[in-house]
Amino acid sequence: MAQFLTGKYKKPGLAPGTLIHIGEIKTDQISITIMDYDQASLVERSVQFIEDTFALKETPSITWINITGIHQIDVIEKVGQHFDIHPLTLEDIVNTNQRPKMEDYDHYLYIVTKMLYFEPFKEDILSEQISIILGKNFLISFQETEMDVFSSVRERIRKSRGRIRTSGVDYLAYALMDAIVDHYFVVMGTVGERMESLEEKLLGSPETGMSQVIHEMKRQMIHLRKNIWPLREILANLMRGNSPLFRETTAVFLRDVYDHTIQVMDTIESYRDILSGMLDIYLSMMSNRMNEIMKLLTIIATIFIPITFIAGVYGMNFKFMPELEWKWGYFVSLFLMGMVAIAMLIYFRKKKWL
Amino acid sequence: MAQFLTGKYKKPGLAPGTLIHIGEIKTDQISITIMDYDQASLVERSVQFIEDTFALKETPSITWINITGIHQIDVIEKVGQHFDIHPLTLEDIVNTNQRPKMEDYDHYLYIVTKMLYFEPFKEDILSEQISIILGKNFLISFQETEMDVFSSVRERIRKSRGRIRTSGVDYLAYALMDAIVDHYFVVMGTVGERMESLEEKLLGSPETGMSQVIHEMKRQMIHLRKNIWPLREILANLMRGNSPLFRETTAVFLRDVYDHTIQVMDTIESYRDILSGMLDIYLSMMSNRMNEIMKLLTIIATIFIPITFIAGVYGMNFKFMPELEWKWGYFVSLFLMGMVAIAMLIYFRKKKWL
Amino acid sequence: MAQFLTGKYKKPGLAPGTLIHIGEIKTDQISITIMDYDQASLVERSVQFIEDTFALKETPSITWINITGIHQIDVIEKVGQHFDIHPLTLEDIVNTNQRPKMEDYDHYLYIVTKMLYFEPFKEDILSEQISIILGKNFLISFQETEMDVFSSVRERIRKSRGRIRTSGVDYLAYALMDAIVDHYFVVMGTVGERMESLEEKLLGSPETGMSQVIHEMKRQMIHLRKNIWPLREILANLMRGNSPLFRETTAVFLRDVYDHTIQVMDTIESYRDILSGMLDIYLSMMSNRMNEIMKLLTIIATIFIPITFIAGVYGMNFKFMPELEWKWGYFVSLFLMGMVAIAMLIYFRKKKWL
Amino acid sequence: MAQFLTGKYKKPGLAPGTLIHIGEIKTDQISITIMDYDQASLVERSVQFIEDTFALKETPSITWINITGIHQIDVIEKVGQHFDIHPLTLEDIVNTNQRPKMEDYDHYLYIVTKMLYFEPFKEDILSEQISIILGKNFLISFQETEMDVFSSVRERIRKSRGRIRTSGVDYLAYALMDAIVDHYFVVMGTVGERMESLEEKLLGSPETGMSQVIHEMKRQMIHLRKNIWPLREILANLMRGNSPLFRETTAVFLRDVYDHTIQVMDTIESYRDILSGMLDIYLSMMSNRMNEIMKLLTIIATIFIPITFIAGVYGMNFKFMPELEWKWGYFVSLFLMGMVAIAMLIYFRKKKWL
Amino acid sequence: MAQFLTGKYKKPGLAPGTLIHIGEIKTDQISITIMDYDQASLVERSVQFIEDTFALKETPSITWINITGIHQIDVIEKVGQHFDIHPLTLEDIVNTNQRPKMEDYDHYLYIVTKMLYFEPFKEDILSEQISIILGKNFLISFQETEMDVFSSVRERIRKSRGRIRTSGVDYLAYALMDAIVDHYFVVMGTVGERMESLEEKLLGSPETGMSQVIHEMKRQMIHLRKNIWPLREILANLMRGNSPLFRETTAVFLRDVYDHTIQVMDTIESYRDILSGMLDIYLSMMSNRMNEIMKLLTIIATIFIPITFIAGVYGMNFKFMPELEWKWGYFVSLFLMGMVAIAMLIYFRKKKWL
Repeated sequence: MAQFLTGKYKKPGLAPGTLIHIGEIKTDQISITIMDYDQASLVERSVQFIEDTFALKETPSITWINITGIHQIDVIEKVGQHFDIHPLTLEDIVNTNQRPKMEDYDHYLYIVTKMLYFEPFKEDILSEQISIILGKNFLISFQETEMDVFSSVRERIRKSRGRIRTSGVDYLAYALMDAIVDHYFVVMGTVGERMESLEEKLLGSPETGMSQVIHEMKRQMIHLRKNIWPLREILANLMRGNSPLFRETTAVFLRDVYDHTIQVMDTIESYRDILSGMLDIYLSMMSNRMNEIMKLLTIIATIFIPITFIAGVYGMNFKFMPELEWKWGYFVSLFLMGMVAIAMLIYFRKKKWL
Repeated sequence: MAQFLTGKYKKPGLAPGTLIHIGEIKTDQISITIMDYDQASLVERSVQFIEDTFALKETPSITWINITGIHQIDVIEKVGQHFDIHPLTLEDIVNTNQRPKMEDYDHYLYIVTKMLYFEPFKEDILSEQISIILGKNFLISFQETEMDVFSSVRERIRKSRGRIRTSGVDYLAYALMDAIVDHYFVVMGTVGERMESLEEKLLGSPETGMSQVIHEMKRQMIHLRKNIWPLREILANLMRGNSPLFRETTAVFLRDVYDHTIQVMDTIESYRDILSGMLDIYLSMMSNRMNEIMKLLTIIATIFIPITFIAGVYGMNFKFMPELEWKWGYFVSLFLMGMVAIAMLIYFRKKKWL
Repeated sequence: MAQFLTGKYKKPGLAPGTLIHIGEIKTDQISITIMDYDQASLVERSVQFIEDTFALKETPSITWINITGIHQIDVIEKVGQHFDIHPLTLEDIVNTNQRPKMEDYDHYLYIVTKMLYFEPFKEDILSEQISIILGKNFLISFQETEMDVFSSVRERIRKSRGRIRTSGVDYLAYALMDAIVDHYFVVMGTVGERMESLEEKLLGSPETGMSQVIHEMKRQMIHLRKNIWPLREILANLMRGNSPLFRETTAVFLRDVYDHTIQVMDTIESYRDILSGMLDIYLSMMSNRMNEIMKLLTIIATIFIPITFIAGVYGMNFKFMPELEWKWGYFVSLFLMGMVAIAMLIYFRKKKWL
Repeated sequence: MAQFLTGKYKKPGLAPGTLIHIGEIKTDQISITIMDYDQASLVERSVQFIEDTFALKETPSITWINITGIHQIDVIEKVGQHFDIHPLTLEDIVNTNQRPKMEDYDHYLYIVTKMLYFEPFKEDILSEQISIILGKNFLISFQETEMDVFSSVRERIRKSRGRIRTSGVDYLAYALMDAIVDHYFVVMGTVGERMESLEEKLLGSPETGMSQVIHEMKRQMIHLRKNIWPLREILANLMRGNSPLFRETTAVFLRDVYDHTIQVMDTIESYRDILSGMLDIYLSMMSNRMNEIMKLLTIIATIFIPITFIAGVYGMNFKFMPELEWKWGYFVSLFLMGMVAIAMLIYFRKKKWL
Repeated sequence: MAQFLTGKYKKPGLAPGTLIHIGEIKTDQISITIMDYDQASLVERSVQFIEDTFALKETPSITWINITGIHQIDVIEKVGQHFDIHPLTLEDIVNTNQRPKMEDYDHYLYIVTKMLYFEPFKEDILSEQISIILGKNFLISFQETEMDVFSSVRERIRKSRGRIRTSGVDYLAYALMDAIVDHYFVVMGTVGERMESLEEKLLGSPETGMSQVIHEMKRQMIHLRKNIWPLREILANLMRGNSPLFRETTAVFLRDVYDHTIQVMDTIESYRDILSGMLDIYLSMMSNRMNEIMKLLTIIATIFIPITFIAGVYGMNFKFMPELEWKWGYFVSLFLMGMVAIAMLIYFRKKKWL
């Protein structure tokens, strides 16, 4: 339940636009990398100080500044001043409890999305906030961890694969979002695998703890849904072409990411339905087991209680009990008990309990 | 759960438009058939190389190219180049995890639908992706398997039955979609039959495994819904007449398919409701059985426990127990036990347990 | 589950507009009746051949042709040719699996509705498809059975009651739909009566089979909902005045039927809620009964098990058991047993189990 | 379930506009009261014949005619003729099964609402249909019972309190609706009180019948919802200013009633949620009790069954049983039984069952 | 359930606009504070009489009058007269059962929101109604308690932090709403903490009372939702810029509060889902425990019942029972009993019950 904990929300009572990092610090050191490219040339390097990137703002080439680590407030502030970012945007960048959203500040677009990772040891799904600022010919991305989801995009820029070097900065923004959504499929795949192995176990021999695992997974689905659903709306908004920063030629690609997002959402919904079904199966298996236990008890008890009674009767110490004197009394009583038991067994067989 | 497995999703990190076949390969060999017709003439043949079809693009007659098997990337690529298909469309054709959708690329419409088959051995519903590219006077359809759902359309073209030979290529597209939706009814019919026989069994003698079968069928309904629902929207879109490729005279036919799709969706919803009801019936029958078991146990136990106690009392070895000396003691005690048992039976009768 | 059976759906693979009767044949003979009227005159007669009605198409008076029995394809075809009906409409008329819908073909309106009957022997709700074709000054209605729901309308025309003779053909169409919706109230009334008597029984002495009856009724509600709900939309459409065939003066009457339809839908929803509540009550009564059974077993067992043990102790055959030699041993032991039993009873009283 | 009974619906087969009183007759005698007022003067009187009111129609002062009792069809008909009311409106007035609705007939507005009363003896919520006809300078209201909800409005007119005497007839209509909605709060309050006392009882000592009471109250909520929900829409419609009969200065007051209606709806929804929660609590308390019963049985049985067995063993009559000859055999066996019992108790203590 | 009690609703039958304080009186004394500021100067003081504030209405500086305690009707009335507030607004201010809403009266905006507090002793969430009247250059806020949520805003005005002194009165209104929404996060945090500790307890050792605590928390979620949800709509309305009192420069800040509100709503929904899940876990743990109890009983009973029967047989007093005479009879019978017990144990082990 880590993600719903206290102390992670905005501190109340501060003036809006006050920069305070909220959330876990997931990386020690801030690292800043730059890719500055056009169709012909590419400059890629790591810088130590954010000020080293400022010169690139004015160049006509496309500049992608990627900042990993958002807990150093002063860096974010300097970026804000130089690139003319609204204080509320800065506040949102350093507060990792945002919902995915898009905000249009005329001279730039601010997009917040969530990167999702499956953490194999805790068997939990972790999320990382990724903020993208898309300006006229620059793009700044903010990540929380060094688990770089953008490496494939970087590779494509380096090798000039696809149309990335020949398209504008909006295509770069698309490529980044596409990389994020692509990674959702990886997470869904892992979740699917877990569900499958859980279902196999469930149908094999249901154990007491399973209902908790299923609930845990249902909760993960809620978590996924909450982080992915708003992305749909963001993409729909961009596709409608409201922002001049996104050109029409990029719209067809946005439609593609949009489709993928819908597909992920569909899968999440299916998974929720399947998990609910698994819970029902678990419960009905548990109740079947209960039935079985009760049946055994009932069969044993109803067979032995009457014959034990017969034995009890002939264990009475009355002076005058004629049967006791008979030579075959004992054997007749045993035979009687046997008959009762067999009658019971036939009854159970008829009831299909045996 | 095959359709929700891992490894079937888009490989992350590739440039958009990279062609990679995703999904099971369901046919060995690619097969290509052509029907080129107008009101007067019809040419039908199978070709080995996709290049043999290219000449037909320019002819005024209607050309229908049907390609079975989508795992040979080079064939798809050649089609893409010659017919000027957007790389994203090609990517979607070879990725069999699409949702049904329609995309308008001005000079052609791209429609993805799902063909559904009931597989009698696995008792599962399989789906096959069918892509349709509708151009100015040509139509290319892509199927995954050789289980040809379009044979009836072919027959109608050959025999010039109905208006198919006299109408345009948009009517052909309609005819194909109609054939697909018609087949949904066949699947629904089979599912309905299975549900009926399951219900009969359920009301006869519910068995432990039935809840799993019902859950399995509920899951199939989710699967069906997911694959059919988006088709509704596609058809509504086409009917609205947004695309110049669909003429107004065809709209009235689209309304017909649309109605059928709604009918299928209605049936799916009804089936889901009925399956939920069947689960409830199963559970209440199971709990009735439990009640019955408990009742039997209780009746037997409450009758015999008191009289066994009486027998136990007279089995005690006290020196001085006056009743033991009586001549009729034994018979009085038996009579007493009988009375207790009868009192109990009357009580149960009054409670309507017997 | 009759209405969800297989084989009742459209045969796949036929050209659209192919006439095939789908559904049960509910009447032996086709019967055709004509009412041709204006304010002053009325001609009413039965004809044997559909051709006898064709002359009336051109007369300025209002012509109502009612055809009972839709399985004779040639009759439907002749109607289609003479009155210029689209093949898809004809196909829908003879396929009794339509959803209620309205289709505007400019020169005529095609309206499909469902008549509902409560069948007292099977205790089931049956539906009959009624198609109405509304032309400029003629109206053709198609019924499946001879159970004539329109007799009251006929009577009103004959006796010139209300405004029916002085209004146009659109008012006739309204009157027919009104008669159908009015009959829904009758069905709802019967269902309400059944629910009431079921509830009384349920609160009196719940029996095992009741949950199935409740489920059966819930399913009937689903069936009703499916057949009535689309009518709402049809009427809303007509009220909006999109069709020139419906005049504005009739709109106020349509609003009236619309209101009634909403009322029926409201009642269906209420009934569903009530049935769900009845199921819950049934389940909680069953579980109460289980509790009662368990309580009885527990009370009997916990009283007798300890005292049976005491009797067992003094039934042991040890040589040296001092109590056995006491004169009052027997009576003391009986007293002891009584004490234990009374203590138990007090305990149960305190727990409010008795 | 009285309100869902049969025979209370519109009689099928009658011409629309036929006046037939449908519903219970809740008052013996029709009573007619008139208030005719303007800012300066007020005339208030009871009349015996409806004809006595007709002269007031033409006066410029505001005329409020209140008719209690709607089963005398001739009175309603005369009102209809004189005030030019559409037959469908009259039909609706005398049919007490209307949903709340508003209909605009240009020269008058017809508003149907439901007055709700809590009947303390049956512990049920009764509804009464109140129809309001709002004309240019007159208002006719129809009530079913003499339980007069409008007395506070009358008082305000008499004492010229607030703006009622200085405002138009639309303000009077608002005041009447306001009085009705105000009374809903009273009903909700009573329901709230009942729920509270029920909850206290439930948490104290849940009884078997409680689930039925809760279901009964849930059903009342459904009933309330059905009767109040449409009012929201009516008020929203009036506020939108579509009718010239409602002036803009009254809109701000309508917004106030609208808010109150929303508040009542909110409360109903909350009550439903709370009742569902109470049902869950009831069920879980019942299952806890079951657990307790089973635990007691199990504890008693598992303690005594083994030691009864030991007693049984030494009650056997074998010739050669060495323990029987020992002097301390009896005491050792008692000690053994004690040990077993204590071991069991320790086990239960460890399991936290004791 | 305090918030759903009777007697707290509007008194029926009063003229609209009649001022009656409805709700608990939460503070003894009314206290009035004024902050009158512009960019350069700030006057802050407490006044005893509301008349002391009236002069400030005309000054060009921004005037914020905060009134704590709304039960003194005369104060509210004077405010209403001087600042020209509509009687319905005044009525709403003193009735603490409002839903959050916004009403535009052209020359002022009336905004009602709910402040929420977590009360640690009752472990309940309390709400306080906060009304804001936003005029051209003045703002009047009404609070119920002295628990001042606006202290941080006051501090910011005093220290001239952020843009509050340089922005208009609409920014002040925003700041107040922001402070309220910020406090929601604090409440959510506390609730989250409680849920976490509850879940830990639940997974450790579920107790009988827990289901009630969970239900109580679910009910609190309903309460929260009801009080926060309408705020979303208010903010969306303000953002749309319908009111000239809110300038466009403030809109970007409103979007920020709007986002926070959505976030709170999301969290509430998540919490509800989690609580439902916890209930399910509780129930399945309870049923597991039941299973365990039944299993123990069954194991003990099925082992001892058969062997007790054997002992009973050899306790019979028949004259002729050969086994009794054998020397090893006793030991053989003990051995037999042991065998039966071991066979049962093996059976249970195979069934995985042990």
